[in-house]
Amino acid sequence: MIMKSFKILPLALAPLAGLSATNPATPSERPNIILFMVDDMGWQDTSHPFWSEKTVLNERYHTPNMERLAANGMTFSQAYANSVSSPTRVSLMTGMNAARHRVTNWTLHKDKPTDRESETLSFPRWNVNGICQIPDIPFTYEVTSLSQLLKNSVYHTIHCGKAHWGAIDTPGENPHHFGFEVNIAGHAGGGIASYHGKQKYGNKTDGTTSPPQAVPGLEKYWDTDTFATEALTIEAVKALDKAKRLGQPFYLYMAHYAIHIPIDTDHRFYQKYRDNGLSEKEAAYAALIEGMDKSLGDLMDWLEQNELDENTVIIFMSDNGGFSTSTWWRDAPLHTKNAPLNSGKGSAYEGGIRVPMIVKWPGTTTPGTRCDDYLIIEDFFPTILDVAQVKSRDTKQPIDGISFIPMLKGIETNYHDRALYWHYPNLWGNEGPGIGTTSTIREGDWKLIYYYETGEKELFNIHNDIGEAINRAAYEPRIVQKLSLQLGEYLRSVDAQRPSFKQTGQVCPWPDER
Amino acid sequence: MIMKSFKILPLALAPLAGLSATNPATPSERPNIILFMVDDMGWQDTSHPFWSEKTVLNERYHTPNMERLAANGMTFSQAYANSVSSPTRVSLMTGMNAARHRVTNWTLHKDKPTDRESETLSFPRWNVNGICQIPDIPFTYEVTSLSQLLKNSVYHTIHCGKAHWGAIDTPGENPHHFGFEVNIAGHAGGGIASYHGKQKYGNKTDGTTSPPQAVPGLEKYWDTDTFATEALTIEAVKALDKAKRLGQPFYLYMAHYAIHIPIDTDHRFYQKYRDNGLSEKEAAYAALIEGMDKSLGDLMDWLEQNELDENTVIIFMSDNGGFSTSTWWRDAPLHTKNAPLNSGKGSAYEGGIRVPMIVKWPGTTTPGTRCDDYLIIEDFFPTILDVAQVKSRDTKQPIDGISFIPMLKGIETNYHDRALYWHYPNLWGNEGPGIGTTSTIREGDWKLIYYYETGEKELFNIHNDIGEAINRAAYEPRIVQKLSLQLGEYLRSVDAQRPSFKQTGQVCPWPDER
Repeated sequence: MIMKSFKILPLALAPLAGLSATNPATPSERPNIILFMVDDMGWQDTSHPFWSEKTVLNERYHTPNMERLAANGMTFSQAYANSVSSPTRVSLMTGMNAARHRVTNWTLHKDKPTDRESETLSFPRWNVNGICQIPDIPFTYEVTSLSQLLKNSVYHTIHCGKAHWGAIDTPGENPHHFGFEVNIAGHAGGGIASYHGKQKYGNKTDGTTSPPQAVPGLEKYWDTDTFATEALTIEAVKALDKAKRLGQPFYLYMAHYAIHIPIDTDHRFYQKYRDNGLSEKEAAYAALIEGMDKSLGDLMDWLEQNELDENTVIIFMSDNGGFSTSTWWRDAPLHTKNAPLNSGKGSAYEGGIRVPMIVKWPGTTTPGTRCDDYLIIEDFFPTILDVAQVKSRDTKQPIDGISFIPMLKGIETNYHDRALYWHYPNLWGNEGPGIGTTSTIREGDWKLIYYYETGEKELFNIHNDIGEAINRAAYEPRIVQKLSLQLGEYLRSVDAQRPSFKQTGQVCPWPDER
Repeated sequence: MIMKSFKILPLALAPLAGLSATNPATPSERPNIILFMVDDMGWQDTSHPFWSEKTVLNERYHTPNMERLAANGMTFSQAYANSVSSPTRVSLMTGMNAARHRVTNWTLHKDKPTDRESETLSFPRWNVNGICQIPDIPFTYEVTSLSQLLKNSVYHTIHCGKAHWGAIDTPGENPHHFGFEVNIAGHAGGGIASYHGKQKYGNKTDGTTSPPQAVPGLEKYWDTDTFATEALTIEAVKALDKAKRLGQPFYLYMAHYAIHIPIDTDHRFYQKYRDNGLSEKEAAYAALIEGMDKSLGDLMDWLEQNELDENTVIIFMSDNGGFSTSTWWRDAPLHTKNAPLNSGKGSAYEGGIRVPMIVKWPGTTTPGTRCDDYLIIEDFFPTILDVAQVKSRDTKQPIDGISFIPMLKGIETNYHDRALYWHYPNLWGNEGPGIGTTSTIREGDWKLIYYYETGEKELFNIHNDIGEAINRAAYEPRIVQKLSLQLGEYLRSVDAQRPSFKQTGQVCPWPDER
C-alpha cells in the first residue's frame, strides 16, 4: 500500500556546469526569495517534463527558462495545489489546509458565494470573504500571513500580480493589508479582464463601469502594446532594483495573471505556434505560456546581472491544474489538456491538483535533480519561513503544512507515508471528470475521492494509473474503508464544513459514514 | 519661576450648538482618527486665533474650516513641534525626542547630511537616513512606528501626502514600510516640486530627470488644473470611502504638502486676496492656506455625510513654524511672519516651534474650549495610542512623550511643571533670528537657548515676553544655571550628539559646562 520510497534522481538535462552553483551561502546572509506563481498552469503546459517521460504537450510548448531553472534546481514531479485559485493561495499564505481555513472556493464579491447552483445540494457558509488579519470580519478567517511574518523579520516584501485572498471591500482584498510593502496590480480579482494594454487591462474610462477583474495599477501601460505579463515583469524588475538599493533581503511574490483565461493573444510569441500547426486558440494558449516563461527568464537575468543569483531562492509553482473545460478557449477534445493526467482545473483528479514545481536554491538543491516525493501547497508556508530563517512564528492560525527543506537537501524522508487531504464542499462553475462536491485523501500510492452528492467513492492507484482511468474501489474494499475512516477523522478534526441535501435539509454524511 | 496653572478656557467663538456633539462614544467602538498635519504652517497663518487676542494676520487669512473645527473642539495655544520637518515627523512616529532619535535635521539623500556649511563647526553624524523598522541600516534609528502599532491593532491605516521619514533608497522612505496600508503620494521628499497638475507635480516625462521632490502617485491628475492639495483631498476621500466599507476603524494621516514652498498660486482662492490688497506673493501664500483649509472642510463634510463624525477624532497640527526667511517667497520684512512670535521655521524661537493645534474628540473635548498647557510633538505617540485603545505597545525604542489625554478631558494637570527639550546640533539652510546650532529647554514660563558655536545663552520669560525680545540671561543667573544643568543632564541621559569646533577638533561643551 505504501508508495515505493522515491529517491532524488538526476535529470537527464542537467548540465554539469550547473554544479558550480553549489557554493554554500554565507550563513549570516538571509537569502532573497522569489516565489514565481503561475495561474492555472497545467502540469504539462511546458517543454520541461514533470513526468518520467516527455509528452506530446512537452513538445508543443516552449519554456526555455523553465528548462534553465530546472537545470540549475530541483524538479518536483508530485507537487499538489488545490483545484481552484483562492483555496490554494490562502493555504500558501497561512499554512492551513483548505478544510480548516474554509476558503474552499474562489472569492470575488463580498458576502457572495461563487458556487454553481446544484439541484440536489446546498452548500455551507464557507469563507466567501477570504482571509484577513483583522478580527470580526464576517465570513473570513483571521490569520497571520506569510508575507506579514517575512516583513516582520527584515524582509522587503513585494507583491506583483494576482492576489485573490479576499473579496472586494474586505481587508483581505489588498496585499498591503498582509504586510506586503509593494503592491503591483494585486486586488480582489482572481483573473484579468484583458491582457491588452490597448484595452487598459479591462478598465473602462468611457463612463461605463469597469468589470471587477479590471486590473489596477498598470495605468502607465494603458493604450500601449504592452501585454500584461510583460508590464508586470517590467514593474517587478523596477521593484527589484529598488529592493537591491534598500539593503534588505527581499521576498518577491511574482504571481502572474497568466495563464488564466482570457486566452488573449500575446503577439510576441503567437505566430511561431501557428507556423507549427496549432489552431488559433491553441497557439494563443502556447504564446501565453511562453510570455510567462520569458518573465521567468527576465527575473533570472536580473539576478545574474546583479550578482544576486547565488543568494536567491527561486520557487516555481502553479495554483491549480490547467483549464480544460470549455471550447470557448481550448480546442476539443476537452479534459485532455493535462494528459497523461485526467481532467483539469476544478477537478479532484490529478489534472486539477498536480502542478509544475521547480526549486532552485544555490548551495542546497543539487542542479538538475528531480524529487518524486509528494507535497502540498500548505507546506510552502513553513518551508519559506525556514528558508528565510524566520524564528518568530506567532500565528493566529494553526499550521497544517510541514517544511520540505529535507527534500530540497536531498535527504531521504518519509513524507510519502503521510496522507494529503483536499476538501471542496462546493461546486465549481464548469463541468467535467472529477468536478463535483468532493473530499479527497492521498496516502502513498492510493487516492480516494468521496462525492458528497452520490456517496460514490473512487479509488485509484496513482503510481500505476496516473491517469485515474481504473476505479479500484470495488476491488479494494479494505483500502476504501481505511482511507474513508482516515479522511473522515481528519475532516472532523479540523471542523470541516459539509454540504446538505436540499430535499431533506440533512447534512451530507462524512466519508466514513457511507 | 513656575508658569501659572492655566485652566481650560471657553473660546469666545464657540457656538452653543456645538455642545450637541458631546454624546459619549460607545466604549466598545474604537474611534476613527484623522491626524491632519500641515507642512510649515505658522501659528498665525489662520483666521482662528491661537493667541489670547486676534492679530493682523488672523484678519488677513481665511480658514473657516479651522474655525469650524475649533468651535467643536479644543484649541491648544502652546503646542510645540521641532523647528524643521523630519525631526518633528520622526518624533510623531516614534514618541522619541529628537535628541534621542538623532534625526535632528531634514532628510533627503542617502548618507548625505543637509546641514549648511559652517565656518567654525563640524556637525555630528546624525541619522541622515531617518528611521526604519529594520536593523542594520546605516544612519537610521530602528523603531516600531505609530502607524505599525495601529495597523497591528485593527486599524486601517492610510497615509496621504508627505512622509519624510527616511532618505531615498532606504526603507524609511516608503510609508508602506511603516505599516501604512494605503500610501497616497508619500515618499522620501519633504517638499513638493510643483503643486500644479499641469506641471505633473514636478515629474518630468521629456527624458530629463525628475527632481527628488517630484511627487509620485498622482499621475491621474497630470496635465489637469488640479492643485496638489485638492488632488490629495480627492484621493483621501476615496480612501475613506473604502475604509468605511472595510469594517475597521481607520487612521488617516492626512499630511499635506501645503503650505511648504514653492508658494505656487492656487487660483481657486488667489484673486480674493489680491482684491483685499495683498501682494502677489502674499496672496499666493494666503490662497495656499485656504486650499488646505478647504481640504479640512471636505474631510469634515465627508464624516458628517457618512455619519462618522461622532466617532472620529480629528487632530489638526503643523510640523514647524511658518517659513519667513526668504524674499523669494515672502514680502519683506522677513522674520515677522509669525508675529507676535519671533522668527519662523528653522529657529529655536517660538516662531519656529510653536504651531497651530486643534483637537476635536466628540464626547471628550468640550466644544469651543482652549487649553493653555504646553505639549510637544512626541506626546502625540502615546496619546494617539491611548485614543485608539492600543494595548500592545512593544516598541523597539523608548518613549519620551506622555499622553495628553487629561488635557483633552479638561482635567487639571501639572504638565506645565515638566520641562520640554529641543536639540538641533545642526545648521539649517537659511539665516535668521534663533537659527543656529542650539539646544533649548522650556520649563514653566522660562525658556533657555544654548548656542553651541558661541556658548551664548538666551533666557526668555515666555509668559511675559512671547516675542522673545528681552534676553533675561544677565539678570537671572541662577535660572540660567539651573536650566543649563537640567538641559545638560537631559542631553547626556539620551546620549545626544554634539557638534565640534573645526579649529580644535574638540566637541563643543554641554550647556552646563560653559
